[in-house]
Amino acid sequence: MTQRAYNFSAGPAVLPEPVLARVQQEMMALPGPRASILEISHRSPTFKEIIGAAEANVRKLLSVPENYSVLFLQGGSRLQFSMIPMNLLTNEKKSADYIVTGSWGKHALKEARKEGEINVAWDGGDEKYTRLPTSDQLTLDPNAAYLHYTSNETIHGVQFPGEPEVGDVPLVCDASSDFLYRPLAIERYGLIYACAQKNLGPAGVTIVILRKDLLERSRDELPGYLNYKTHAEAGSLMNTAPTFAIYVVRLVTDWLLNDLGGLEKMYTQNQAKAAMLYEAIDQSEGFYSGHAQADSRSLMNVVFRLPSEELTVAFLAQAEKSNLTALGGHRSVGGIRASIYNAMPVAGVETLRDFMVDFNRKNH
Amino acid sequence: MTQRAYNFSAGPAVLPEPVLARVQQEMMALPGPRASILEISHRSPTFKEIIGAAEANVRKLLSVPENYSVLFLQGGSRLQFSMIPMNLLTNEKKSADYIVTGSWGKHALKEARKEGEINVAWDGGDEKYTRLPTSDQLTLDPNAAYLHYTSNETIHGVQFPGEPEVGDVPLVCDASSDFLYRPLAIERYGLIYACAQKNLGPAGVTIVILRKDLLERSRDELPGYLNYKTHAEAGSLMNTAPTFAIYVVRLVTDWLLNDLGGLEKMYTQNQAKAAMLYEAIDQSEGFYSGHAQADSRSLMNVVFRLPSEELTVAFLAQAEKSNLTALGGHRSVGGIRASIYNAMPVAGVETLRDFMVDFNRKNH
Repeated sequence: MTQRAYNFSAGPAVLPEPVLARVQQEMMALPGPRASILEISHRSPTFKEIIGAAEANVRKLLSVPENYSVLFLQGGSRLQFSMIPMNLLTNEKKSADYIVTGSWGKHALKEARKEGEINVAWDGGDEKYTRLPTSDQLTLDPNAAYLHYTSNETIHGVQFPGEPEVGDVPLVCDASSDFLYRPLAIERYGLIYACAQKNLGPAGVTIVILRKDLLERSRDELPGYLNYKTHAEAGSLMNTAPTFAIYVVRLVTDWLLNDLGGLEKMYTQNQAKAAMLYEAIDQSEGFYSGHAQADSRSLMNVVFRLPSEELTVAFLAQAEKSNLTALGGHRSVGGIRASIYNAMPVAGVETLRDFMVDFNRKNH
Repeated sequence: MTQRAYNFSAGPAVLPEPVLARVQQEMMALPGPRASILEISHRSPTFKEIIGAAEANVRKLLSVPENYSVLFLQGGSRLQFSMIPMNLLTNEKKSADYIVTGSWGKHALKEARKEGEINVAWDGGDEKYTRLPTSDQLTLDPNAAYLHYTSNETIHGVQFPGEPEVGDVPLVCDASSDFLYRPLAIERYGLIYACAQKNLGPAGVTIVILRKDLLERSRDELPGYLNYKTHAEAGSLMNTAPTFAIYVVRLVTDWLLNDLGGLEKMYTQNQAKAAMLYEAIDQSEGFYSGHAQADSRSLMNVVFRLPSEELTVAFLAQAEKSNLTALGGHRSVGGIRASIYNAMPVAGVETLRDFMVDFNRKNH
């Protein structure tokens, strides 16, 4: 069997090994239908049990209140960038606020502007997306239809440690790259969404949790697939759901609940993992420099630079030989990006930390 | 290991066993990245090879001309129902023609009407969708932006044996449930699309093949994910593609090319499989009655009834015991539906045919 590397890919990203082993074991046939999960109807009792368990797991992990719907959709966060303004802007609430702390917020803003009036509450672009806004820097509209922000910017490694304070305006959060990394107070959100391929499962499914009263804003004239209300009424089975991706989400959330012991424990582990790498950066005497300011650092994506392009290339090549893969930074930022989502084992982060210390010692 | 049934599900549906075995074998790690297909970036060299091979296979199987794009999208046919009119209707070509031969055509029509003026060229609803229109029954608009039809109606088992004659208007075809069942003259189409979960792979990816000159109709103001031009320019990697589903499509198309020997051979086998079941219906002395008229019968979905609801229930229960599963008709039509897509083995159809003959003999 092919040896597995410590895979620091930003997404699609590492999954828990017991989940992959279970997928492998069941691939040819599930006991009930005597067919593969790839071959069974989205309306079969077996799949209804699977999507029901996936939803129940998410509800349990995040203590999702009853007045919220949990949807499993296709199209990635990119489709949400359009669906959110198309569904949530109304004749009375024509404008929305957007906080932009990196590339994903910028993409969301671009799509929203096609659908309505948008107020940019803050944009960190002038400072190369290295930090979060302070609350007095936000230009908020108290009458906004919603406020959109990106809880973790995967490319720049900038993360909100908690929700921004925006009064009564519904919070809409792109949590694509840090969903389920810690407990959340869902009742603070109007809508929170996340594509699966970072912390949750394979690419091809996006979870949307939204407060049911917001469904009343969805107009019948919307394109069918883009209407939250239709999806909510059909229990995410308006059309054929991405069955396999939802099956894996169910297994990953089983793992979070049963193997990991829930989100408090996951959060503690995530803090410890990130601390190891930021310590290696801070104690490198300037050899490694982090992209984000210390108070805005992401626990999910640790983004840093080496003193030269030559050393960056050497770092990546030697890391690869040490079984540490997919560490190259995003093409727009360069340098190194270590994505250490929920499923990255502590041992993987320790190995990377040791490698960083060693590489610094040999090349400083 | 769990025994595999002969699975007649209408979709998600049976896949070739060698494909499932390969997926199982590679699940923990692919040799290059030493990570699972579920864990690697859509921009990694390994995945680019996979999506490139999937596209090359589709191009080879259907002899797709150079002036056509091949896209891999999310959202199912349902999203295409909206994307097609949103992209292809223009200020000069404001209206489109729709032929409705069953439930899927009706869904497509409903979404199109939200986006522009639609002319219903024919609707078989008054006859319970039991047949195709004759060419003199079509009310065509020679100036239409396109003509939409559904090559195979999964629920009613009604299939066009070839393309309708509509002059110079671009043909737009929903081939979701019969894509790659026979060779096609792609140059006769403006756009042809198919969700994967019938003949092609798991749920979660939809293939769209479209003539490149039609991309000029896509307006910049469209929601980003709904713009064909953006997807074509990005080689289907505008955002994270449904990587696993595309990987399986690659394996299924490998199987069609290499194990089956291409679409001419696949078509011959599909004709033979369908003939077995229709013969069992026609020779049952009225015990089984087909839903579709003889000249409109589908080679993919064989839809028929028994004399009573009681016999239908008994048929399904005894079939299940004979390892023949998922034979219940769609809730809107009832009766029996045997979906016999490309990957259904000849032996599975023979077993069902023998079961039908035997059940008739015992219960006539």
